[in-house]
Amino acid sequence: MKTVTKSAVRQPPRGIPLDTIRRLSICLRALNRLKERGIATVNSVELAEPLNFSSEQLRKDLSYFGRFGKAGVGYNVGQLSGKIHSILGTDKVWNVAVLGAGELGTALLGYSGFEDFNLRVCAALDNDPRKIGKTINGVRVSDIAGLSGVVRRNEIKAAILTVTKTAAQEVAQKAVSCGIKAVLNFAPVTLNLPKGVHVSNMDVSCELETLVCRLANCN
Amino acid sequence: MKTVTKSAVRQPPRGIPLDTIRRLSICLRALNRLKERGIATVNSVELAEPLNFSSEQLRKDLSYFGRFGKAGVGYNVGQLSGKIHSILGTDKVWNVAVLGAGELGTALLGYSGFEDFNLRVCAALDNDPRKIGKTINGVRVSDIAGLSGVVRRNEIKAAILTVTKTAAQEVAQKAVSCGIKAVLNFAPVTLNLPKGVHVSNMDVSCELETLVCRLANCN
Repeated sequence: MKTVTKSAVRQPPRGIPLDTIRRLSICLRALNRLKERGIATVNSVELAEPLNFSSEQLRKDLSYFGRFGKAGVGYNVGQLSGKIHSILGTDKVWNVAVLGAGELGTALLGYSGFEDFNLRVCAALDNDPRKIGKTINGVRVSDIAGLSGVVRRNEIKAAILTVTKTAAQEVAQKAVSCGIKAVLNFAPVTLNLPKGVHVSNMDVSCELETLVCRLANCN
Repeated sequence: MKTVTKSAVRQPPRGIPLDTIRRLSICLRALNRLKERGIATVNSVELAEPLNFSSEQLRKDLSYFGRFGKAGVGYNVGQLSGKIHSILGTDKVWNVAVLGAGELGTALLGYSGFEDFNLRVCAALDNDPRKIGKTINGVRVSDIAGLSGVVRRNEIKAAILTVTKTAAQEVAQKAVSCGIKAVLNFAPVTLNLPKGVHVSNMDVSCELETLVCRLANCN
């Protein structure tokens, strides 16, 4: 087995499981921590086990995209990080808008997790005159009436939706009409958006409910 | 097919897919909306399709737990809601603590999604003297040094972890030592906790990264 060159990194075909993509992004974050500690190589066991999945799973996930690592040596941390960035499409910066500058939007504008990825939360929008013009964690809140221009000027394709559940569907539709192609939805509602728009639900209450179900039944 | 009685609702064995539980909790929320609108019966297509999954999937999910609904009539909204509560273990109220009363913790103390479930966020804890004693969205912030007593007095089994990524592992371990059995983790780190503790990661950045990957590669 030999280290692959960049050209050998295949783009994920449509059939790649979402969980594979999720695990690779978790790996990317772990690789960043290794880089910070000056660690140059890591094997699949050392990388996967602290992340609570198996080295076999990691090797299977990576195998969708080519051959990685050197037998008996492991992965070069910097190279593997670069390749995962390339697989995930975040070898370039992605600008992201937060829709809704309430408490949750404010929290996400200061969220430290984005630092590991090339995700730049560069815009916040709201319809509340008391919020418009304020700067939250370095980002100025704009009037959501001007969403279209903000999206165009910043080449924004993805938005984080943190408006109330009653406003969520309407704001999401507006975002899509302005060119947004991916929505991370925190509102506790199911959005109905056109085909081709990617939606991921950060459904805090359902996730807590699921946890409680495991507690209630598995102990 | 006939409507089942409560005794026919089976508890989920360990092998039930997590996604089944998630879909049922999403259904529960939709059933609450139907009840608010005074709708008494619903069939599997009417219930499942607005939630973006198929009626076949819903019927399969429910079939793990017994037989539901009446052929040609559909489900009684109130009964199905009660049965799903029973399946999920939320036919009783579950008290939940928020660990970390920063921006994200504050937002979650006001999150409207919990209303659909018997989840009661009844405690918030922090180690910052400027936050301790404050009341946020009706919940008083306690000193995290007194976590053990708060957990015992309120019979809390589940916690939402919103502390910084550097504090997350330590605070989660402390919570587990105080009797917490389930952690909804918002910190962008992988927690290592004892076997038997349920952890669910609300990994905002990884989820956004996964969305961007789909955007980068699927268009």
